[in-house]
Amino acid sequence: MADLLEEDLGTWRRTHYSVDINPNLNESEIIIMGWVSSIRDHGNIKFLTINDRFGHIQIALKKKDCSKAVLEKTEQIREHTSIAIKGKVKSEIKAPNGAEILPVEIKILSLARKASPFLIQSKKSVGIDTRLDLRALDLRRPFLQSLFNIRNTIMDSCREFLRKDGFMEVNTPKIIATATEGGAALFPIFYYEREAFLAQSPQLYKEQLTMAFENVFEIGPIFRAEPSRTNRHLSEATSIDVEKAFADYNDVMNLLERMLSYVVSKIQENNKPHLEYLNITLPDVALPFRRYRYSELIEMLQNAGESIKWGDDLAFQKLQKIQDAKVDSFYFIFDWPAAIKPFYVKPRSTVTNECESFDLMYKSLEISSGSTRVSRKEELVERMKKQGLNIGAFDYHLKVFDYGVPPHAGFGVGMERLIMSLCGVENIRDVVLYPRDIDRLSP
Amino acid sequence: MADLLEEDLGTWRRTHYSVDINPNLNESEIIIMGWVSSIRDHGNIKFLTINDRFGHIQIALKKKDCSKAVLEKTEQIREHTSIAIKGKVKSEIKAPNGAEILPVEIKILSLARKASPFLIQSKKSVGIDTRLDLRALDLRRPFLQSLFNIRNTIMDSCREFLRKDGFMEVNTPKIIATATEGGAALFPIFYYEREAFLAQSPQLYKEQLTMAFENVFEIGPIFRAEPSRTNRHLSEATSIDVEKAFADYNDVMNLLERMLSYVVSKIQENNKPHLEYLNITLPDVALPFRRYRYSELIEMLQNAGESIKWGDDLAFQKLQKIQDAKVDSFYFIFDWPAAIKPFYVKPRSTVTNECESFDLMYKSLEISSGSTRVSRKEELVERMKKQGLNIGAFDYHLKVFDYGVPPHAGFGVGMERLIMSLCGVENIRDVVLYPRDIDRLSP
Repeated sequence: MADLLEEDLGTWRRTHYSVDINPNLNESEIIIMGWVSSIRDHGNIKFLTINDRFGHIQIALKKKDCSKAVLEKTEQIREHTSIAIKGKVKSEIKAPNGAEILPVEIKILSLARKASPFLIQSKKSVGIDTRLDLRALDLRRPFLQSLFNIRNTIMDSCREFLRKDGFMEVNTPKIIATATEGGAALFPIFYYEREAFLAQSPQLYKEQLTMAFENVFEIGPIFRAEPSRTNRHLSEATSIDVEKAFADYNDVMNLLERMLSYVVSKIQENNKPHLEYLNITLPDVALPFRRYRYSELIEMLQNAGESIKWGDDLAFQKLQKIQDAKVDSFYFIFDWPAAIKPFYVKPRSTVTNECESFDLMYKSLEISSGSTRVSRKEELVERMKKQGLNIGAFDYHLKVFDYGVPPHAGFGVGMERLIMSLCGVENIRDVVLYPRDIDRLSP
Repeated sequence: MADLLEEDLGTWRRTHYSVDINPNLNESEIIIMGWVSSIRDHGNIKFLTINDRFGHIQIALKKKDCSKAVLEKTEQIREHTSIAIKGKVKSEIKAPNGAEILPVEIKILSLARKASPFLIQSKKSVGIDTRLDLRALDLRRPFLQSLFNIRNTIMDSCREFLRKDGFMEVNTPKIIATATEGGAALFPIFYYEREAFLAQSPQLYKEQLTMAFENVFEIGPIFRAEPSRTNRHLSEATSIDVEKAFADYNDVMNLLERMLSYVVSKIQENNKPHLEYLNITLPDVALPFRRYRYSELIEMLQNAGESIKWGDDLAFQKLQKIQDAKVDSFYFIFDWPAAIKPFYVKPRSTVTNECESFDLMYKSLEISSGSTRVSRKEELVERMKKQGLNIGAFDYHLKVFDYGVPPHAGFGVGMERLIMSLCGVENIRDVVLYPRDIDRLSP
């Protein structure tokens, strides 16, 4: 390893990004920085492609014009090397941007010491485990660059939408004392001398906070000790959690569909090159989304010959049948049986074995769950007893309901599933930087 | 408990917030919602104050003008009850907003079932543990409403600043395989059949990600099994983590001070009433912040008679002496001894027992730590060996450095400590919604 070839940044700083380079800059001296994504040697001339986070630019090394120092350095470079190039822009009709760089001086900042075990350019590449083992390198692939740039727009536009709509961003604890909502399995923690758990959602906290801040949201990690190996489940995911005071489930269904419509418009505005690279058309988000009553879907499935009865959950496989029949893009399923929704979901006043709840679906994938919540203590205790929960363990939560918790409603959106549905990605691991599941805890 | 008095929201929706009410609305019919913060009965007239998230408004119940239904309902109301009021605005010079509401119809949405164990109005109130046990109620206090509205501006303006500066927001895993950086004690987790830990920071992940996305930031939870009981430490905190490719510690010191200056300008713009209520003046953030070389401060302390030598850490108590001497507001301490900074901090090329590192201080409180990072594998391994770390446990991280990790620098800011410094809060527990420490795991 030729250590001496690697240099520090020193006083060099980037003057331009790849996308800034165009024929109008002809003859300007610039400094660009990035990593080498390809090397083509044609004898008298050698081309390097340098990638930065906005794209790539061509470096042309004409052996008769280049200094010996520059030529010697380029001998050492292999793909993925981090590099800084001081050079002159030259308009060149055959170059990708209509311009290329003729290097005057090169700094090798960080040599690649090995050849990458997978190709960067292809969309499919090798098996996901090989890629995940070297995830930071994998993330240089234009396919993932496109996905994560879109993810960035989703994060940003959700926040922007919710803030404009008067929501305050909050952070609730991820370490909790009791296995709260029931349902999902939790990860236990050694908390000093006690047992604690990782929060499966901010549910009870965001509900409490409506009494102080009315409209709150949190975008943060949630943890589920998911025992299954599927393409739709993670042990650690990002959730967009929203809760609104003085509102019911219809209000928040409207809020959610407006939010998704806003997100899609922002992706269309900000991510044109990424959508083009991925070659995808975003799903239709015309408002309002279709709304199906749960009982209506059960009937639809029964008529299609499915063995299902009122009260059953609508499993992924069942929903695929519905999708084949008539539903695509986003739609709501509302008024679920009270017995299969959590204790904090408010029963309907008229049909009490149903509850004021909804799931937002994309085809057969659940993207979000929401509901009107129970805001009165006695009703909450009653619902908890019905579901066989230990009332004592919820004392820290129930006692807040002695002090006028307002009526409220909310939902949680699975960020990863939302990206999957918008970008047509099949494996949820591809849309998380460093996925965690029953088999994977590293990198 | 008179259950029948509580009503559902039904078709009622808020038409105005408290701050919208003014004499120009005289005679308009409006619906406001909120919680009752005070009740004053003067015989023929009764005043209710209704608080919502923007402020409060006065409701005047004149017994001769009110319907029997309205009067009967108000008998049941105690402070903290959640309520909706349909009424007429009446301009009233003696009312706080120059207007009050004459109620036509009232819906009691959620009765307070008990009297609050502490007063809402006072800034100091009862001991923090009593308040934390009923935190959601505590958060109705104008003191905390002000603090958390300012916190919201800090969160939002940090993100806005970093996005404008070309940073991508990322989410890195909170469940990790190895006790990474050394130093802080970690919380162990049962992860399926294995042991795992809660991440003490996104450090190594954000560094890796510079090779794919160049400039990244994360605002999220960090976890430290902090054994001490102080007013400055938490077991779960929020960290603003920033990492920038092709940059060194001077670049990110400049970035950090510009970010803080932006944040303060945004608080001044958005939080006037909160600053007034708290009666605070924000610290001076004129650029550039003062910069002290570590060795210079050691000398300063030695001259002041302190028993300290080059290589020692600058403890909180020692720094208080410096503060008394000459430093206040924000300042940097840079070029720390390499031996007391983590393995990933880059030694200075000229004075190798020092490293390219800085702490941002506010008086004697550390707000942020940052540095140029080591970007070459061999140097990283050497630093790890020097610090006695198990190289094998870092294999998942080190192997990424075979593929041209660019030079990079970054910092982490403790969100809670930043709020403490900006708002003059003494106990860190006051600036977290639901604090976690060695003694507290609930609510």
